[in-house]
Amino acid sequence: MNTLTIVKIGGNVIDRPAALQTFLQDFAALESPKILVHGGGILATELLEKTGVPVRLHEGRRITDAGTLKICTMVYAGWINKTIVAQLQQAGCNAVGLSGADANTVSATKRPPVPVDFGFVGDVVAGCINVPVLSLLLDNGLCPVFCAITHDMQGGLLNTNADTMASVIAAALAKTYRTKLLFCFEKGGVLANPDDDHSVIPAIDTAYFQQLKEQKIISKGMLPKLDNAFAALHAGVAEVYIKHAARLLSAKEGTALVAGVKS
Amino acid sequence: MNTLTIVKIGGNVIDRPAALQTFLQDFAALESPKILVHGGGILATELLEKTGVPVRLHEGRRITDAGTLKICTMVYAGWINKTIVAQLQQAGCNAVGLSGADANTVSATKRPPVPVDFGFVGDVVAGCINVPVLSLLLDNGLCPVFCAITHDMQGGLLNTNADTMASVIAAALAKTYRTKLLFCFEKGGVLANPDDDHSVIPAIDTAYFQQLKEQKIISKGMLPKLDNAFAALHAGVAEVYIKHAARLLSAKEGTALVAGVKS
Repeated sequence: MNTLTIVKIGGNVIDRPAALQTFLQDFAALESPKILVHGGGILATELLEKTGVPVRLHEGRRITDAGTLKICTMVYAGWINKTIVAQLQQAGCNAVGLSGADANTVSATKRPPVPVDFGFVGDVVAGCINVPVLSLLLDNGLCPVFCAITHDMQGGLLNTNADTMASVIAAALAKTYRTKLLFCFEKGGVLANPDDDHSVIPAIDTAYFQQLKEQKIISKGMLPKLDNAFAALHAGVAEVYIKHAARLLSAKEGTALVAGVKS
Repeated sequence: MNTLTIVKIGGNVIDRPAALQTFLQDFAALESPKILVHGGGILATELLEKTGVPVRLHEGRRITDAGTLKICTMVYAGWINKTIVAQLQQAGCNAVGLSGADANTVSATKRPPVPVDFGFVGDVVAGCINVPVLSLLLDNGLCPVFCAITHDMQGGLLNTNADTMASVIAAALAKTYRTKLLFCFEKGGVLANPDDDHSVIPAIDTAYFQQLKEQKIISKGMLPKLDNAFAALHAGVAEVYIKHAARLLSAKEGTALVAGVKS
């Protein structure tokens, strides 16, 4: 069974051109087959402000109305996706930028409007992933680069969580490839103390995750990332790491998610 | 030899949602293999204005500075490309949206800065087209949908003329497929009288084209389109038409470009 590496890169890294370039050079050096899933960054927020699209939030989470979806699609599927693809091409990686609509690679279900109407937001599960077309691309030396825009198969685009998308793609491909999932961001891993960058927890299993949640050691933003990480693990993904984008090629660094019970 | 249909759709049609939807449904009904190349429309101009990017022109042609390239990439490769792909998917056409950077399908050469520096504008020739990867997609039932953004293989994106891109893609694929190229826009074809929509010229050969040019019957905007059309024909494309977007499925309508000498 071929090993497939799926890397998620966060918006914080995308916002810093030098960090992004280094990361992309490292990603290009990773062995194929591989897939990149990228987040958004601040460009969408800047453009929403500039064009006067009101930013509406519910408990800190953005509501994607029609104007917001348009801006997000322009920024994520347009500028960010294509600049990443062009840089990967330069680095010798045969990247092909995709939204979920492209080749119907990832379809999604519009989130129900109750209890909160988040607008054009799409939720994905493993059955949403088009494994044959992804295998076709991967087996022919292409490297899919996904933005987190999907489609509803009814002609509509949907804004999707990039962490979830990476997790679900990894889960869907775990039967075809020995799959490795790496969530890369601007920290060294999951921190025991959010104020201490050196407090990276080397490994977390499900029991320890429960304990960290109960002790409120894991911060709000990290919780969904860990939920996504464990979901992939439980779906058969062989290895899952949360790690620093600048340490992509250092195999043993970051936080490893492990399924087993902590001894 | 399989017949491949390549359709270019102009910005004027893209700007009218109802016309675009009808066109895309017709395009979905065309026999595969097929490729769509789309132009831009007014959205980029609107967004340039809204975001305060100055529009610089030379003899009526836009100069693509860094800010303009960013907006064009967002609009063409992002919003327009992905909305077209989502609509085609709904209509049962397995579209995959591409810029030239994606899978290195179309590379371009940045136009020399003398005599006029047009900025980030890329010129394409048949050698720029990645025939093996396009054949891979086409032969596996996928329909490439191109925006007119290319790359320089050095990490940079370039704004490219969509008519030229369609012509050059057709020329490059003419050795692998019996290739048909249809330029679709908001008129019935090449008009003998620009003010009379019923004055469609049914066929133009190279000699007649010369004559129409000398008599200044062909207007400024139509000249480069015809140059692109004849270039494809001379490169071995089997059939080239300029026709109305609403008449895509009417085989015999529009202006046929023919290589032979007019009797």
